[in-house]
Amino acid sequence: MRRFFVRPEHVRGEELLLVGEEARHAFEVLRLGPGAKALAFDGAGREYVFEVTSASSKALAGRILEVREGKGILPLSLTLVQGVPKGRKMDLIVRMGTEAGIDTFIPVVTRRTVVRFEEKASSKVLRWQRIAREAAKQSQRTTVPSVLSVCTLEEALWQVDSSDLILMPWEGERQRTLGEVLARNRQARQVVILIGPEGGFEPGEVQEAVAHGAVTVSLGPLVYRTETAGVVTAAMVIYELVLRPFP
Amino acid sequence: MRRFFVRPEHVRGEELLLVGEEARHAFEVLRLGPGAKALAFDGAGREYVFEVTSASSKALAGRILEVREGKGILPLSLTLVQGVPKGRKMDLIVRMGTEAGIDTFIPVVTRRTVVRFEEKASSKVLRWQRIAREAAKQSQRTTVPSVLSVCTLEEALWQVDSSDLILMPWEGERQRTLGEVLARNRQARQVVILIGPEGGFEPGEVQEAVAHGAVTVSLGPLVYRTETAGVVTAAMVIYELVLRPFP
Repeated sequence: MRRFFVRPEHVRGEELLLVGEEARHAFEVLRLGPGAKALAFDGAGREYVFEVTSASSKALAGRILEVREGKGILPLSLTLVQGVPKGRKMDLIVRMGTEAGIDTFIPVVTRRTVVRFEEKASSKVLRWQRIAREAAKQSQRTTVPSVLSVCTLEEALWQVDSSDLILMPWEGERQRTLGEVLARNRQARQVVILIGPEGGFEPGEVQEAVAHGAVTVSLGPLVYRTETAGVVTAAMVIYELVLRPFP
Repeated sequence: MRRFFVRPEHVRGEELLLVGEEARHAFEVLRLGPGAKALAFDGAGREYVFEVTSASSKALAGRILEVREGKGILPLSLTLVQGVPKGRKMDLIVRMGTEAGIDTFIPVVTRRTVVRFEEKASSKVLRWQRIAREAAKQSQRTTVPSVLSVCTLEEALWQVDSSDLILMPWEGERQRTLGEVLARNRQARQVVILIGPEGGFEPGEVQEAVAHGAVTVSLGPLVYRTETAGVVTAAMVIYELVLRPFP
């Protein structure tokens, strides 16, 4: 079911009201009319199942059928494609990434990956899955993220091909900030974040990702390490798509 | 000198153009006219010293006098008031917080702080200062953050009293999200973030902070540990105030 954003102050008793961009999208693009059922989230941890009672491109009113207290429920799917860094850093990435809302991790080998994977890869993946399970419990997330098998960047790009938005933070990108891209893609619900290993991605890899639909973005003036970049990007994505009020 | 946001595409050769909210603020509030000097940042790591050539409440044009490649220069001051958690977690907080743009850390003892501070406090502070120095170097930050002495929450509140915005992420806040507050405070340049220790702040402490001007906010549906909450909040603040285009 499609999830819409409702401002907390637009929920009154059994009624809720979608306005602005959300109403327009629901009415004009998805053509929801009286009787249709949908989900709304308020960005502060509550989720509502509602039935549409009236709709126009300015406002859509609904009657609430069910309220879910959704701590840990994120109305987004966030995938982190992560170039595997050295040592135990990937443990920290899975730990913090789970807390920060990632629900699928795809560890990738890139040209600058230093670690060698052979038969050990599957035991590492099992270990990361265990870490994700523990972290999900501690952060009260209702679903446990998946950690997929280690693959190449190209394989990962094929896997995420049909997502709404593929973000590639890249220090070579000097024009387009993450803010501009997210502000234009507020309806995105399946978001992929591509982060390189310690040395970053090579130019050829950036081109390859762009050919698969990735958008290169600047994260601003700060320089983040590979183990921090994914968490920071996830926080920014959640901020724009879940916490920020619609204009 | 006051810093304004300029869109990267509004910088052409020696000329730059401020529009929207930035132009209005510069012209109507700060009354900048031809001849005045100011700074502009583009959110992607460049900073410009410019002289105003023409100004109205719609647009302000300037001639660029100097371009600074500002990787590591953040056009904000970010203070983290952090309830000291157990064990070595504060090391991680200072490490990642420095990377995430914090420039002043104020470690505080709160009612739920478990750690006991006696004569050891100053050696701990020295250790955190060393960590901040190392982290600043690695993240190419041009300034090293300060770690102030351990104090009580009340003392910290007095210290940050005159800031533009004091944010208190709090799980008891179910209405107001960080997104709403930041979207209304885009001109804020001195931002303070208050994070409790493991058990969070006690209700009395929340009241005390609010009395000092703090605004309680929800960070959304996810539950963050104390060692992650500050970094996540800092990323969100930078996103809204530095990366996101002005409307």
